[in-house]
Amino acid sequence: MSSAVGKSNQRREQILIKAMEMFGQVGYRGASLRDIATRVGMTHPGLLYHFQSKAELLEAVLARWDQRDLAYYKILESSDPMKQIEGLLANIAANINTRGMVELFVTLAGEATDPSHPAHDYFWQRYCGWLARTEQVIWALKAEEKLSKEVNPAILAREFVALMEGLQMQWLYFPDEVDVVRILCDHVNEFLIEPIDCSLDFYALAREYAQQAEAGEP
Amino acid sequence: MSSAVGKSNQRREQILIKAMEMFGQVGYRGASLRDIATRVGMTHPGLLYHFQSKAELLEAVLARWDQRDLAYYKILESSDPMKQIEGLLANIAANINTRGMVELFVTLAGEATDPSHPAHDYFWQRYCGWLARTEQVIWALKAEEKLSKEVNPAILAREFVALMEGLQMQWLYFPDEVDVVRILCDHVNEFLIEPIDCSLDFYALAREYAQQAEAGEP
Repeated sequence: MSSAVGKSNQRREQILIKAMEMFGQVGYRGASLRDIATRVGMTHPGLLYHFQSKAELLEAVLARWDQRDLAYYKILESSDPMKQIEGLLANIAANINTRGMVELFVTLAGEATDPSHPAHDYFWQRYCGWLARTEQVIWALKAEEKLSKEVNPAILAREFVALMEGLQMQWLYFPDEVDVVRILCDHVNEFLIEPIDCSLDFYALAREYAQQAEAGEP
Repeated sequence: MSSAVGKSNQRREQILIKAMEMFGQVGYRGASLRDIATRVGMTHPGLLYHFQSKAELLEAVLARWDQRDLAYYKILESSDPMKQIEGLLANIAANINTRGMVELFVTLAGEATDPSHPAHDYFWQRYCGWLARTEQVIWALKAEEKLSKEVNPAILAREFVALMEGLQMQWLYFPDEVDVVRILCDHVNEFLIEPIDCSLDFYALAREYAQQAEAGEP
């Protein structure tokens, strides 16, 4: 890579990081390319060289997010359902490690409920994906007779995703009071014959997964 | 009331309704007074006569919201805990009846996680109130030995509020698939010795409560 390309990529990366931060703080509609440019220390036309519109910048932010999560899901696929639940909890711990990502999520997801929002279809699909993956894990637990009661996997998946999201929201308002991962872990144990060990360090597990994902394993 | 005052109040009301709609669609930071004025069919200075700033308009929107809910809570206070739960579910049904209010809530609550947002303290307090009220109902159920299992009321309240919010969010994306009130009612029954009748028409109950609240009863 020539040093000019390297420098351009670095600039692009800086813009992306600042855009994530600002979308999380003031929302997509509240943020302006001009403000983002100023915060990165560049001119508005300078920024337009990298991203031609705010919508293009939003797309890049969402793609970056998908990239992180996809690596994650790949790891999850190869494990048994109990490990998958641990993986889900680690994924949430990874969010909690990056407050900006959680802010970005709740702000954009809230804004994008409006069908004319440029990220509406993205979030619609994202919810579909979460619900489907969670439901799949529950069906697998059911098939392996690991559930302690009769459940409706589709409804339980809805509840899990809703709980995850609602607790993250509360955590943003009361960061010292809400232990999102712990509450979710205890909630999951209500349905499991053999409980998950909720004293597990899901934050360490998240870091481990992130390293594996970066190294392209397994 | 003179007709000039009446007309001014009517104008104020129109602005308020349009502001609620726009804050719900594009967020507080994405909405401009100029746009709101245009949509109400008045000039920007004309709007400023009624609300001197966007923050003042936001305050009026939030106050309106409180007013509706306060009337509700007053009714709830006078009932036994089982009736209070029915009241909570009716309150959620009332939200579902006004999609714009739910949109307004998720958009503003998401934006306002940023501590510098003008509605941050408002939402902080609102969450505190919800959590406290829900916890109080659970303690009352416990005292009357109506719970079917050992629970931690503070955690259960957190879960209920999180679930309520997360399900409303999913409902905004999948309005035909998510029956928020039904899922919450079934969830509550997991903890009750004598279950609530989830086939109750909570939407009709919500209308009944609203009429009582308007009439200043009980």
